[in-house]
Amino acid sequence: MPHRVGIAGHRGYSGAELVRILQHHPRVEPVLLEHRDDGAAGIIIRNAQGPHRAPCTAEAVRAEKLAIVFLATPAEVSMELAPAMFEAGARVVDLSGAFRLRTPENYAAWYGAVHTQPALLAEAAYGLPEFCRDRIPGARLVANPGCYPTAANLAIRPLVEAGAVERAAGIVCDAKSGASGAGRKPSLKTSFCEVTENFSAYSILRHRHVPEVLQVSGLEEREFSFTAHLLPIDRGILETIYFRTAGALTADDLLEIYNRRYAGEPFIRLYHAGHAPDLHAVARTNFCDIAVTVDAATRRAVVVSAIDNLVKGAAGQAVQNMNLMLGYPESEGLI
Amino acid sequence: MPHRVGIAGHRGYSGAELVRILQHHPRVEPVLLEHRDDGAAGIIIRNAQGPHRAPCTAEAVRAEKLAIVFLATPAEVSMELAPAMFEAGARVVDLSGAFRLRTPENYAAWYGAVHTQPALLAEAAYGLPEFCRDRIPGARLVANPGCYPTAANLAIRPLVEAGAVERAAGIVCDAKSGASGAGRKPSLKTSFCEVTENFSAYSILRHRHVPEVLQVSGLEEREFSFTAHLLPIDRGILETIYFRTAGALTADDLLEIYNRRYAGEPFIRLYHAGHAPDLHAVARTNFCDIAVTVDAATRRAVVVSAIDNLVKGAAGQAVQNMNLMLGYPESEGLI
Amino acid sequence: MPHRVGIAGHRGYSGAELVRILQHHPRVEPVLLEHRDDGAAGIIIRNAQGPHRAPCTAEAVRAEKLAIVFLATPAEVSMELAPAMFEAGARVVDLSGAFRLRTPENYAAWYGAVHTQPALLAEAAYGLPEFCRDRIPGARLVANPGCYPTAANLAIRPLVEAGAVERAAGIVCDAKSGASGAGRKPSLKTSFCEVTENFSAYSILRHRHVPEVLQVSGLEEREFSFTAHLLPIDRGILETIYFRTAGALTADDLLEIYNRRYAGEPFIRLYHAGHAPDLHAVARTNFCDIAVTVDAATRRAVVVSAIDNLVKGAAGQAVQNMNLMLGYPESEGLI
Amino acid sequence: MPHRVGIAGHRGYSGAELVRILQHHPRVEPVLLEHRDDGAAGIIIRNAQGPHRAPCTAEAVRAEKLAIVFLATPAEVSMELAPAMFEAGARVVDLSGAFRLRTPENYAAWYGAVHTQPALLAEAAYGLPEFCRDRIPGARLVANPGCYPTAANLAIRPLVEAGAVERAAGIVCDAKSGASGAGRKPSLKTSFCEVTENFSAYSILRHRHVPEVLQVSGLEEREFSFTAHLLPIDRGILETIYFRTAGALTADDLLEIYNRRYAGEPFIRLYHAGHAPDLHAVARTNFCDIAVTVDAATRRAVVVSAIDNLVKGAAGQAVQNMNLMLGYPESEGLI
Repeated sequence: MPHRVGIAGHRGYSGAELVRILQHHPRVEPVLLEHRDDGAAGIIIRNAQGPHRAPCTAEAVRAEKLAIVFLATPAEVSMELAPAMFEAGARVVDLSGAFRLRTPENYAAWYGAVHTQPALLAEAAYGLPEFCRDRIPGARLVANPGCYPTAANLAIRPLVEAGAVERAAGIVCDAKSGASGAGRKPSLKTSFCEVTENFSAYSILRHRHVPEVLQVSGLEEREFSFTAHLLPIDRGILETIYFRTAGALTADDLLEIYNRRYAGEPFIRLYHAGHAPDLHAVARTNFCDIAVTVDAATRRAVVVSAIDNLVKGAAGQAVQNMNLMLGYPESEGLI
Repeated sequence: MPHRVGIAGHRGYSGAELVRILQHHPRVEPVLLEHRDDGAAGIIIRNAQGPHRAPCTAEAVRAEKLAIVFLATPAEVSMELAPAMFEAGARVVDLSGAFRLRTPENYAAWYGAVHTQPALLAEAAYGLPEFCRDRIPGARLVANPGCYPTAANLAIRPLVEAGAVERAAGIVCDAKSGASGAGRKPSLKTSFCEVTENFSAYSILRHRHVPEVLQVSGLEEREFSFTAHLLPIDRGILETIYFRTAGALTADDLLEIYNRRYAGEPFIRLYHAGHAPDLHAVARTNFCDIAVTVDAATRRAVVVSAIDNLVKGAAGQAVQNMNLMLGYPESEGLI
Repeated sequence: MPHRVGIAGHRGYSGAELVRILQHHPRVEPVLLEHRDDGAAGIIIRNAQGPHRAPCTAEAVRAEKLAIVFLATPAEVSMELAPAMFEAGARVVDLSGAFRLRTPENYAAWYGAVHTQPALLAEAAYGLPEFCRDRIPGARLVANPGCYPTAANLAIRPLVEAGAVERAAGIVCDAKSGASGAGRKPSLKTSFCEVTENFSAYSILRHRHVPEVLQVSGLEEREFSFTAHLLPIDRGILETIYFRTAGALTADDLLEIYNRRYAGEPFIRLYHAGHAPDLHAVARTNFCDIAVTVDAATRRAVVVSAIDNLVKGAAGQAVQNMNLMLGYPESEGLI
Repeated sequence: MPHRVGIAGHRGYSGAELVRILQHHPRVEPVLLEHRDDGAAGIIIRNAQGPHRAPCTAEAVRAEKLAIVFLATPAEVSMELAPAMFEAGARVVDLSGAFRLRTPENYAAWYGAVHTQPALLAEAAYGLPEFCRDRIPGARLVANPGCYPTAANLAIRPLVEAGAVERAAGIVCDAKSGASGAGRKPSLKTSFCEVTENFSAYSILRHRHVPEVLQVSGLEEREFSFTAHLLPIDRGILETIYFRTAGALTADDLLEIYNRRYAGEPFIRLYHAGHAPDLHAVARTNFCDIAVTVDAATRRAVVVSAIDNLVKGAAGQAVQNMNLMLGYPESEGLI
């Protein structure tokens, strides 16, 4: 019998992607939780039958016997909903930034708001399976990683762990994302005429995803320069990461570090030297594609990391976490 | 009486932009030089009257009494045409990479081809008016700068000159360009379906525009990491430049360096701290917009530099050079 | 001495285009009228100097000695502002739909609102110079045409006047517009992720621009089927118009009708048979490009009409009207 | 045991979409047939394992025991390959225009070339399951319909069959397609800079897909006006179809005609009156979405029909045909 799982915030871009993936997942049955009617009812089709719907309340979650509830909601809503879901017997995968950082102080510093559930911060498992696979299966609360940190940490941490980076010279991560990363709420900044044929940097050195990278990679803030940019596309993140190698290393040396670290990982793909991913390569997949360029003589190195921000950067990784929590094969229902 | 000026390669994107600008220039009369019929005749309109046309030969250039010929042609064609234009009494503004580097060795190393006019390399004036204004008015041959180096050098050189950059830590220039920078010749890489909703890095650490940046900025190759990216837009270049400040400097300190260096420059615009240009701000203008972000405590600095690759990065700067060569006000006919 | 002219609604897309055109107009000096602060202050540049600004009040308009005020405001705001502008001694070019229809009844039927200035409906001159040039120079109030009707009427009316259309069979106008036509106010419908890689029909058979076409072309509603579509581009309108010719006419016959009707018109361009405009041909120009295809054997005819919705469809035509009102050459400051 | 099926032309856009669908189809195993190396090898990934590959020859097809070969090749290549595939014991689903029309004369008239396999024209089953389901299961050769005709015929034929259209007044089909419909071969017309922020009509009244619509719908050429347009998007076709109803019919009357005709059809979706599909609704699905608007008083009717040109308009419909040929459920492996 399939597990039943709920999705709150299913009208947002990450939530809708979750619905899309879960509708084709062979082992679960999705239920749409109506937290707030945003008035956009989607396509209106005669005789159409979509997934089952229920209110987003503890009573309904209990009555629907939901094993897991995905919260694709703003951080402040997730803080409010998570305890209610636990009360109703469900476990939670939260896609917001609410439970990713370890301390309320760090949360306050980067999110500019008081954390209302500090106890859950300590409890939450960080849902980056490639590095935190142990704690996820038994967790009641999984904090699904941010989109930028997913691409960054999968590229950076193996190299830092292996001592391949000259940390004193600093690491630069120049990150570019499609507009769906900004969410579905209309704003002038994400209006079509403002975004098309345009490109811009934002949150220069101060993006709230920075502390997630530091937390996972072990870098210090002074070692890490991060700038986000808005691409005139719907989906996809590409990060270009610059550093100096610690000692004389070649591209093949770095690839070998990744190869060893990611042996058996279903969602990490490495490129031969001289090749690099574009966003089409990862679109609508749960892959993180990584490529390496090195000028060995001068120890300058560049790593390109690409994901689909709505899949490996959000809904796909959330399903990967769900698979671990429910004891399914980790790549079940994902491509 | 207006000067008459010729445009070879007027069907390419830079050439067409030149025609557009020159048709509204109050002091010159453009003549289209037909070097090679590429079969695309443009819009076909009854009774339409376009600019005058002539063959791209020394005889025709002499007969048409052209003061200046713009070569918006591939480097190898420019090398072939430039001497013929001189013979016909015209001066040349070349928009290709043929005459930008100082030595044939450097050209061979980065362009992978033998330079057939080495004497002209020594003669050519580099057409970045903000830094090379003295030599341009009297030059017979002006090498119009590359698009990426224009945005990079205008951002980097004032800081390097002022000693504001800790060069030992390296400078990263992450550059993004619209597809018109790749030229008009059809290729799979610039086909619509390959570019739309996509983004990719290319020429990582090895772009042929790198030596132009080194030549103008005074940096060494080992100090400078450059990666080009293809944006799914028509036009525009945005470069995000990362470095460590030499000593404790604020954003206002860096802005003051730019302010002093660029006092009176008509085409450099600076942003208040906390603001940065997007590509719409510079589209179809000859401006280079520059913004600065600094985290003084850790000495991490980011400069954003934006231009329209077809204007300040090609045709607009070529007209700026023409204005200097013909003794007109430098911003005549440019906005 | 140049005339001074005011622009209310200068932050909207049509208003900003007006500012762009008027800043390069050789005979007028634009003044930005601050009707309501929408909070978006545009690019922030050190030492930049923009156009003069003043409040959008009768007192300020009088003090600034504005000859003409452009209202690039919503219809209900235009109805409120126009009398105040007259009081201040200014004439008005209104870019909204407020004054285009002849009767308050027609306005109520299509706009779903009561017209609060019915007397001005009778007074207003319809600002389509190619057909209403006589009344514009002396008008106190010019109603600048809608974008869709401009492209439609310029294509349809000469053929209807010449009796070339079999009206009983009906005329179909399939119209497609870029997203700037929907205005700058953020909404889910015009969010980037909803528009990119998308296309849709809207206001099928019921668009509020329909009565303008009927009024100018002389067609009856039952003879005219109009559907609007949203293109994933910033600017441009292309209309594909289908009808049956009255009698055996060729493409050249129809072109001859246009040729005669539009002899000397600076902004109408006709294409040779076998060619048709795309939106790049008219982008950022005040042209309306028209092409004809006919299958004479079956009397099926197709006319393609293309404009830039923000120029000939809004700001450019408004300046064309201003030129007529102030006695300047009609194409002054327009390309 | 799964059937093995071959794909010739798997590097084109339709062919690549076929590979994508077939890789997730639960009952077949795809084999890539290498007909001609186009030099673009796709993404280069260490240790990646793609589908099996074989030469596109009769020997290889026999040796690989392919039950069906999909020809996603140009018409002239399909004419050449089809007999070789039969010889090797395979059945063929051809995605080109080679076998869609019934007579060599009609082919010559619209494709401007001599048909080299006229006998196969008579044999081929037209692969539009909703109307030709009977002949497909037993066919040796299925001609997969064109993309435009699929959207047009699914919308038009039920109404013509039901006598709901006043044919004497003519039917207009204004069709818009994404650029992938033009194929993957680079050309100036489909270069990014030419397509982005652009829109154009082409093949006005003379598109080679017209005879397919006539053949299936039963309309005469004089009754049917068709114009194709190029949308600045990757994929999707939306057709806006105008006609006069035969007698006083409402939108619900027309919807009822569709409802009856398409009862049980898995891939046809109808919209409630007042709603209409956009291209996002059908992207990456095998659905054809249909909506109806009627002004009963004047008998003007508009039908909007939307598909993904690469799915229901090509690869998805080809798999639907394959399912019928191999006796699988018709929607197996399709969403």
